[in-house]
Amino acid sequence: MMQDKQYLMIPGPTPVPPSVVAAMSRPMIGHRSEDFAALHRRIQEKIRQVFQTKEDVFILTNSGTGGLETAIANVVSPGDRVLALITGNFGERFTKIARAYGAEVDEVSFGWGKDVDLSVVREKLAGNPGYKAVLATQNETSTGVLNDIAGIGALVAETPALLLVDGVSGVGGIEIRMDEWHVDILVTASQKAMMLPPGLAMIGVSSRAWEVIEKNRAPRFYFSLPAARKSLEKWNTAYTPNVALFQGLDAALDMMMNEGMENVYARHRLLARAVRAAVRALGLEPLAADHCASPTVTAVRSPEGLGADDIRKVLKEELGITFAGGQGILKGKIFRIAHMGFAGKMDVILGIGGLEMALARLGYPVELGAGVRAAQEVFLGRNE
Amino acid sequence: MMQDKQYLMIPGPTPVPPSVVAAMSRPMIGHRSEDFAALHRRIQEKIRQVFQTKEDVFILTNSGTGGLETAIANVVSPGDRVLALITGNFGERFTKIARAYGAEVDEVSFGWGKDVDLSVVREKLAGNPGYKAVLATQNETSTGVLNDIAGIGALVAETPALLLVDGVSGVGGIEIRMDEWHVDILVTASQKAMMLPPGLAMIGVSSRAWEVIEKNRAPRFYFSLPAARKSLEKWNTAYTPNVALFQGLDAALDMMMNEGMENVYARHRLLARAVRAAVRALGLEPLAADHCASPTVTAVRSPEGLGADDIRKVLKEELGITFAGGQGILKGKIFRIAHMGFAGKMDVILGIGGLEMALARLGYPVELGAGVRAAQEVFLGRNE
Repeated sequence: MMQDKQYLMIPGPTPVPPSVVAAMSRPMIGHRSEDFAALHRRIQEKIRQVFQTKEDVFILTNSGTGGLETAIANVVSPGDRVLALITGNFGERFTKIARAYGAEVDEVSFGWGKDVDLSVVREKLAGNPGYKAVLATQNETSTGVLNDIAGIGALVAETPALLLVDGVSGVGGIEIRMDEWHVDILVTASQKAMMLPPGLAMIGVSSRAWEVIEKNRAPRFYFSLPAARKSLEKWNTAYTPNVALFQGLDAALDMMMNEGMENVYARHRLLARAVRAAVRALGLEPLAADHCASPTVTAVRSPEGLGADDIRKVLKEELGITFAGGQGILKGKIFRIAHMGFAGKMDVILGIGGLEMALARLGYPVELGAGVRAAQEVFLGRNE
Repeated sequence: MMQDKQYLMIPGPTPVPPSVVAAMSRPMIGHRSEDFAALHRRIQEKIRQVFQTKEDVFILTNSGTGGLETAIANVVSPGDRVLALITGNFGERFTKIARAYGAEVDEVSFGWGKDVDLSVVREKLAGNPGYKAVLATQNETSTGVLNDIAGIGALVAETPALLLVDGVSGVGGIEIRMDEWHVDILVTASQKAMMLPPGLAMIGVSSRAWEVIEKNRAPRFYFSLPAARKSLEKWNTAYTPNVALFQGLDAALDMMMNEGMENVYARHRLLARAVRAAVRALGLEPLAADHCASPTVTAVRSPEGLGADDIRKVLKEELGITFAGGQGILKGKIFRIAHMGFAGKMDVILGIGGLEMALARLGYPVELGAGVRAAQEVFLGRNE
């Protein structure tokens, strides 16, 4: 196996398209130059379409967790009550950040592999009117579960609480309508459906959120949204931005605009349907139920008697394919196949074809080609 | 379909590995510098192992046809008799070049899809003792046929004629032993099994060939091998070389040395076996018989009533996969799948998975997954 022949199918970092690599390889420009201002302005016009917002979207030089901390640091003051809707590892991380800023967090865990139950949210909001914020995850990367942000948003909008959404592994690949769905702060990061290397977080902020942010007294400097807003007025950034990633983001957004966001979303849904049909044809079962299946990543339960990490090891060492493993309580029990960002039909065929070989190599009674056929049938529209 | 998502499966140019792209992206160096001399020396040591020769191998800045013309221009004088062993389009091209230099060419065509018949060569050589050179093609790219260069070499070595071999789509992916097999001039090019973009030809020259080259009176300047040899003594080139491709060649040769040439050859043979098993499982037939099947490219007859170029069009437009079409008399009748250079198992799975979908889309009664399964069985060692 050639070392250079690698297929990265993890939920971030995801493969970077050649045209984005080319844009990132362009000469450096000064971040206080007119060239940078023009670049920043182009990005802003396009990323608002991805977020479906009329508000500013700030491009911050840190990874997704830095983006989530930015949301918390600007909203939460010590002693504030926060409702956390948890469906896996990243819901738990959002909660930890809120606690680090002194929030009194009311945690509701829906179980790993399950989505947020809106009736529970309704009950919580009715019984506790004092929430400063509600934390939700659009796409729970650790379980491949998609939560109903529109539904959560409609409930939270009836209260004074702000809705803070972790959209890290969803935005750019899964539909989100920040304004229409009443999302007050929406965070995403570069290395997932946005098709870039890691290093940028993007954060959209509603006018309702700004009222809270301006009054907030928590310590913040690098993560200051008011500083970011002041700089954006001149198409600037408060601190030195990752210029190469801005150049790449401009190109990645061009690709999205050319494809059309509705087509981008439909592509991800199609890939998820194909992966789910394929693993079922091999006798395996996706962790998430169909009604809450993530369009960008599919978690699959390892078959009885076979360790998920053994499958991943064969895939990586013999075929150069990398699937993600399970996190937390799911470690060793699931593997996760990403179809996120720069992903197409042939990635699914390749990934499933590899999975079949790995299962066969490990002695699992697999019908070779059966998973590929199921995916092909989805792509050919034969199973509808 | 995303424009950036492309799978190039043609017999040159072939995909370029990331480490080779990185090497080509290094800063330019002067071609009369010590850095270049060191680079040239490193390349020379490695490429002799690929050619299996103790002789000099010249790296020339032109494409494969320029390399073939270099061979002819330095050997053939007007009126010289030449025996051309033709098995397809590239055998014909070699012949045309010889004619352009005034050779009287004795053409023997074995038919498109067939290999060179050694008994015919033996007969020809016995009956015509005056050949200055014999022209042969190692791997006929247009038909996916591998010729027996060892066998041809043993026959030609018993005569005063030089054996000139077009190894363009073979060298680096298919075993060749220049010295042991009595090849006097061996030509290849960068964009095939050597894993580089087009732009370089490589040419190895035997001591027997040098005796003829030194006496040759045909006009030559850029293509002068004596000029190339004089420059190589100082690890130089006669004229400005493509420096970036030299940097890339250094990296590509490192990849080959790391994998080991025997492993490189075994990999190509394995991929060819898998492709042939796969297309047969779909009811299609390779053009070349098993005994002369090319390890680097497989030509496949289009099924009855289906145009090869219609299949290629669906593959390209709907899935981003490019197969090559037929050339000359085979235009529209075959398609050609390359598994050449930077190619691995998953490329075969992907290409066959795509072929199945294209055939289905065109109404051909294909069992989805059957070709993929046949390839998987080859890779898993289940069909031996």
